Amino acid sequence: MLTREENERLTRVGPETPMGNLMRRYWMPALLSTELPEPDGPPVRVRLLGEDLVAFRATNGDIGLIDEYCPHRRASLWLGRNEDNGLRCVYHGWKFDVKGQCIDQMNEPRSFAHKIRTTSYLTVEFGGIIWTYMGPPELMPAEPKFEWTQAPEERRYVSKVLQESNWLQALEGGIDTSHFSILHRALKKNPSEEGIPLDSPAVKSAPKLELDKTSYGYRYFGIRQQEGNDLYVRAYHFIMPFTQLRPPGPGKDHVHGHFWVPVDDHHCMVWNFYRSYEGPIGSEAEAVDGGGGNDPEHIDAENNFLSLRRAHNDWLINRNVQRTDTFTGIKGINQQDRAVQESMGPIVDRTKEHLGPADKAISIARRLLLAATDAVERGEEPPGLQPEYWDLRPAESTFSAAEEWKEKIVPMMQVD
Amino acid sequence: MLTREENERLTRVGPETPMGNLMRRYWMPALLSTELPEPDGPPVRVRLLGEDLVAFRATNGDIGLIDEYCPHRRASLWLGRNEDNGLRCVYHGWKFDVKGQCIDQMNEPRSFAHKIRTTSYLTVEFGGIIWTYMGPPELMPAEPKFEWTQAPEERRYVSKVLQESNWLQALEGGIDTSHFSILHRALKKNPSEEGIPLDSPAVKSAPKLELDKTSYGYRYFGIRQQEGNDLYVRAYHFIMPFTQLRPPGPGKDHVHGHFWVPVDDHHCMVWNFYRSYEGPIGSEAEAVDGGGGNDPEHIDAENNFLSLRRAHNDWLINRNVQRTDTFTGIKGINQQDRAVQESMGPIVDRTKEHLGPADKAISIARRLLLAATDAVERGEEPPGLQPEYWDLRPAESTFSAAEEWKEKIVPMMQVD
Amino acid sequence: MLTREENERLTRVGPETPMGNLMRRYWMPALLSTELPEPDGPPVRVRLLGEDLVAFRATNGDIGLIDEYCPHRRASLWLGRNEDNGLRCVYHGWKFDVKGQCIDQMNEPRSFAHKIRTTSYLTVEFGGIIWTYMGPPELMPAEPKFEWTQAPEERRYVSKVLQESNWLQALEGGIDTSHFSILHRALKKNPSEEGIPLDSPAVKSAPKLELDKTSYGYRYFGIRQQEGNDLYVRAYHFIMPFTQLRPPGPGKDHVHGHFWVPVDDHHCMVWNFYRSYEGPIGSEAEAVDGGGGNDPEHIDAENNFLSLRRAHNDWLINRNVQRTDTFTGIKGINQQDRAVQESMGPIVDRTKEHLGPADKAISIARRLLLAATDAVERGEEPPGLQPEYWDLRPAESTFSAAEEWKEKIVPMMQVD
Repeated sequence: MLTREENERLTRVGPETPMGNLMRRYWMPALLSTELPEPDGPPVRVRLLGEDLVAFRATNGDIGLIDEYCPHRRASLWLGRNEDNGLRCVYHGWKFDVKGQCIDQMNEPRSFAHKIRTTSYLTVEFGGIIWTYMGPPELMPAEPKFEWTQAPEERRYVSKVLQESNWLQALEGGIDTSHFSILHRALKKNPSEEGIPLDSPAVKSAPKLELDKTSYGYRYFGIRQQEGNDLYVRAYHFIMPFTQLRPPGPGKDHVHGHFWVPVDDHHCMVWNFYRSYEGPIGSEAEAVDGGGGNDPEHIDAENNFLSLRRAHNDWLINRNVQRTDTFTGIKGINQQDRAVQESMGPIVDRTKEHLGPADKAISIARRLLLAATDAVERGEEPPGLQPEYWDLRPAESTFSAAEEWKEKIVPMMQVD
Repeated sequence: MLTREENERLTRVGPETPMGNLMRRYWMPALLSTELPEPDGPPVRVRLLGEDLVAFRATNGDIGLIDEYCPHRRASLWLGRNEDNGLRCVYHGWKFDVKGQCIDQMNEPRSFAHKIRTTSYLTVEFGGIIWTYMGPPELMPAEPKFEWTQAPEERRYVSKVLQESNWLQALEGGIDTSHFSILHRALKKNPSEEGIPLDSPAVKSAPKLELDKTSYGYRYFGIRQQEGNDLYVRAYHFIMPFTQLRPPGPGKDHVHGHFWVPVDDHHCMVWNFYRSYEGPIGSEAEAVDGGGGNDPEHIDAENNFLSLRRAHNDWLINRNVQRTDTFTGIKGINQQDRAVQESMGPIVDRTKEHLGPADKAISIARRLLLAATDAVERGEEPPGLQPEYWDLRPAESTFSAAEEWKEKIVPMMQVD
Repeated sequence: MLTREENERLTRVGPETPMGNLMRRYWMPALLSTELPEPDGPPVRVRLLGEDLVAFRATNGDIGLIDEYCPHRRASLWLGRNEDNGLRCVYHGWKFDVKGQCIDQMNEPRSFAHKIRTTSYLTVEFGGIIWTYMGPPELMPAEPKFEWTQAPEERRYVSKVLQESNWLQALEGGIDTSHFSILHRALKKNPSEEGIPLDSPAVKSAPKLELDKTSYGYRYFGIRQQEGNDLYVRAYHFIMPFTQLRPPGPGKDHVHGHFWVPVDDHHCMVWNFYRSYEGPIGSEAEAVDGGGGNDPEHIDAENNFLSLRRAHNDWLINRNVQRTDTFTGIKGINQQDRAVQESMGPIVDRTKEHLGPADKAISIARRLLLAATDAVERGEEPPGLQPEYWDLRPAESTFSAAEEWKEKIVPMMQVD
C-alpha cells in the first residue's frame, strides 16, 4: 500500500516528473530494428515517456529520433520524406538530419536553417533493438550491452506488444514470482490452451520469497517446497528501472526477460527477449512467444503493436476453457499477464491494496524506485547505470533440503 | 427550472453525494435473475451508483455482489473463477465468499485470509430480479415486495435496457403523462410502426394534471376531456425515489411500471415490468415490450443491455415513417422515450428550462427528492421505505362529467 | 511565435470569448443550400462557434436556424417535425417558427406559447449558401455579396468538408503561399496522383512575399523568380476574418477561394468556392474540387461532411506514391492541406514555432485578428464589414524584370 503521493511519484513519466527524470537517465529500447528495415524508408512514430517522436533511418544507415512536430509550424514529420540523409517536412520542405539540425528550407529564399535545431535523442542499435537515451548528454551512461544482445542473431529473439496500462503495474506483474503458478496454471494434463502443467515443480506449493539487494537492483528467489523436502528455486534479476531476467522453465539453457518501457502514463511497451545457449532459437522461441506468449499473429505491427486481445473485447476470454482447461480461459501466457494488469485500469489505485509477504519483491522495487527518484533529485547517480548488469543471467534448479541452495545458485546467475 | 446547485444535487449519485446517500437507503434492482442462471457460472459486471461491482451465484445458490477489484492488488474479479462457494481472483488465487470475506490465498505459504474482507452488498432475489441494498446495514428497510413481484411467474415479465443519460431525465420522462399522447402518437389508422392510435382517448386533448402527495411519493392523474364532456383519467403512482406504476392502456387488467436506476452520473438502467391479472402474460407482454417497447431483439444482453438504437446512429430514425406514419419515426414506444431523453445530453441543463402547468408532476418530484436528500442529511428517514407501497396499482377509466371521478378511481389504485 | 495567451485569444470561439465575439460580427456560411433541398424537409444539425443549432426550411421557404435544444425541457429539435411553417418538438409538441417564436404547445390545455422564444439567428440565402449572422442585431453588417455569389448558377460551384482542427491553422495554411509549390508538388511528369507540375512557374523558386494592408484585411503577393529574370506573381486577398481569394493557376479566368469557418475550438468547416468568367463551370470545377481537392466521392454529406481521409487512418497516405510520384503520397490538393493541418493536433502550440520571412502573411493576419478583437472590446467596428470587399478578385501573371509588376497587377485584383 502506498500513499497517493507515492503512487503519483512512481507512475507519472512525462518531462519534469520525478519518475520521468529518473527514466531519462537510462538507455531505453525504442524500436525493433525491423521497424526501420532500410535506409530512406518511411519514418515511424515513437511515443516514449509521454513525448511524441519520429524515427527514421537515413541514407547512410544512421538513425534519427526527433520531435514528431516540425519546429517551423508544428506539422507532423511522420508525414515527412526520408531522403538524402535527412527527414523533410512535406509542408514547407524543412529538412533535418539525424541530430535534429535543420539542413534545408525550401520555402525561404534566404535560408536560416543553420539557426534551427529540433529536439533529437541519441540512438544506438544492437541486439535487434534501436535504443535511445533521452537524458542530459553529459550524464549518458554506458550502452546497455546485455550479454544476450551480443549473441549471434540466430540465438536471440526479441518482440514487443503495447500494454494499455501504466508501466508500473506491468513491472509489478513481472517481478511477482508467486502468480506464475496460479494465473498461468493448466487445470488438466492436455489442456486445449497452453498452461503451466499440473506436474510442474512450480505448481507444487506457494513460494517462499527471498531477495538480495544489489548495486543494480536485486536478485530474488521463489522457493517452492517439493515432495520429499526438495526445494525448487527460481532465481531472477530485477535491474533498475524496468528490466527483468527470468528463468525459462525447467530443462532449457536460456535467458528470458522483459523490459516494461513507459510510453506515457497510461501505456507501456512490453518487450520480450530470449537468448539460447543451446543452439539456434528460431521456431522454438517463436513458439514461446506465440502460444505461450504474445501470439505474434495477433499483434498488429502496423497499428502500434496493439494486440487483438484487449480490454474492450474482454481479452477474448473463453469461459468454457476457463472452467475445465486453464485458470483464466485467456490464450497465451503473456496475454494472461497483460489481461490482469490491464483489468486494474490505467493506473491502479495503490492506496487500496492489501500486500502480504508474497509481495515483498514488489514492495522493495517500489522503495528502490522511490529512493532512486530522490537520488536523482539530489544530483546523485541512480543504480543500474554501471555495466555490472551486462553479464547477469537467471537460474533455476531443484535442491535437496540438505543443500545450501543459495551458495550454489548465485554463481549460476552470471554468464561464465 | 432549477439552480445549478439543485441540478447537481439531484443528478450526482456517486459515494458521499447527497443523492447517492439518498439512493443508498433503498433496495435497488441490480440484475435480472436470468443474468446469473446457474450456480458457479461466470461472474457478471454490475455498475450501480458509480460503483464497479461483480455479481456471482455461488455453488449453494447464494448471490454475491462485491467490489469488482480484488483487495489484494486490484485485479478485476470479473476475470475470476466462480467455484466452490466463492469467487477466486485468477491473479493470485485469493477467494471471496458472497459476504466479501476472503477465504483462501493461493499465493501465501501462510494465509492471512481471515484478516481480509472486501466491499460486499446484501442481495435478495424475487420476482425475477436480484435486488441489492448498498446503504448502512443498520438502516436497511423492508424488502421491496411489490405485489407484482409475488405473482406467479407466468403472470409477470421483467426486462431492462441501458440508457445513456442521467437517471433523472429518465424518471422525468416517465412521470410526465402529457407527452404520452404526443411523442408516441400514430399519424394514421394503420401505421407502419406501432403508435398510440388516433382514436385513443389519450389523444383527444392535452391532459389536465392533478396530483396528491402521499407518504411514499405521490399519485397523479392525467385528465383528458373527451367528446360529450366525458373525462378519460389515467392514474399513476410515483414511488420514491425511482419507481413508477402506470396504466397499461384501455382494456387490460395489468400493472405496468418502470424503475430508473442510476448506473452512474451519465447512465441509468431502465427496468420495465408487467403484471397481468387476466392470465399468462407470455407473448403479449413481450409484444408490449418489443414492438411497443424495448424491441428485445435489438437489446444486446451480452453487451451491458445496450440497444441497437442509440445516439451515435440517431436511434435509426426513419424520416419517411415520421412524415406519414408516426410522430417520431423511431421504432418502439420505449425507444422513443429513450431517444428524446438521450437527445438532451448526458445531464440536461435544467437552468435553461421553461416548465408549465403540464410539468407539475416533474416539479413536485424534484422537490420531494431534494427534501429527501435534506432529510437524510438531518438523520431522518426518507419517504418510500415503508411497505405501504407494496399493494399499489395504477388505474384508468372514463367518467361522465357528472361523476366524482377521483372518489371512484382512488380505490381502484390498490390491489384488492 | 505567440504567447500562450495570444494563442488562446486567437483560437477560442465560444460565446463570450474575444474571438467568438469578433466572429459574431460577421455573416458566416452555415449550410449549403442543397442541405435543405425542400420546404418541410428534415431539420439539419449545424454547429457554429461552439453552439449547437438546428436548421429547417419552412413551408413558405423561409429558413430557421435555432437552438438545437427545445426551451421547454431541452429535447433535441433535430428529432423534430418540420410542418406548416414551424419546427415542432416531438416530445411535447412545442412548435417554433423561423424566428424562434413558440407558436404551439400540444401538451398544455392553456397555451402560454406567446411567452416562449428560443435563440434564433438571422439567415439569408444566395450563391448556393445559407448564411447566418449570430451577433447583436443592431450591429448587423451588409450581407456578404461577393461578386461570385451573384454569378449565374452554372458559373459557380461551392463545396465543403469538415476539418478536425482549430480554424486558425486552416486559415494559416490557406494564406501561406510558400507551401503551395512544396506540399502539393508532383515529382515527375505524369504522376499517378495530381500535383503541381515540375514545369509550373510556381515550382521554380521559393517566393518572395509582399503584402499591402487594406481596409478589409490585406492583399499579398508571392513573387517567384523565373528563368531569364522574369517574375511569376500570384496575388491573393485575405478578407477578415476567415476568407481568402486565390488565383486558380495559370491559364484560367477564375476566382477560387475558401472560407475557414469555426465549428468549435477543435473543428472548422472548410468551404471551397469557384467562379468562372469563361463559361459554365460544371465538370471542370468538380475536377478541381475532386482530383485536385476535396475528392467529393470521399466526403460523407450524410455524416457532417467528414472526409474518408482522416487522422485516424493517416489520411490514407501511400508511401509508394510519396516516394516516386507526389511530395506527400496523399490524394487530392485540398486533402494534403487538411492532412498537414490536422497533423498538428487540435490546436497547434504556437509558443513552439519558428517563423521566418516566408511566414509574414501569417504573422500579420494574427496581428490583424488580435487587433480586431481589441477593437470589438473597445466598442469599435472591426475591419471587413463594409461592402468594399464584394468585388475583389485574385490575379496571377508573369512579368519581365523591367516591368513595375505591382502597378500592373493591382488593377487586375478587382472585378471590372
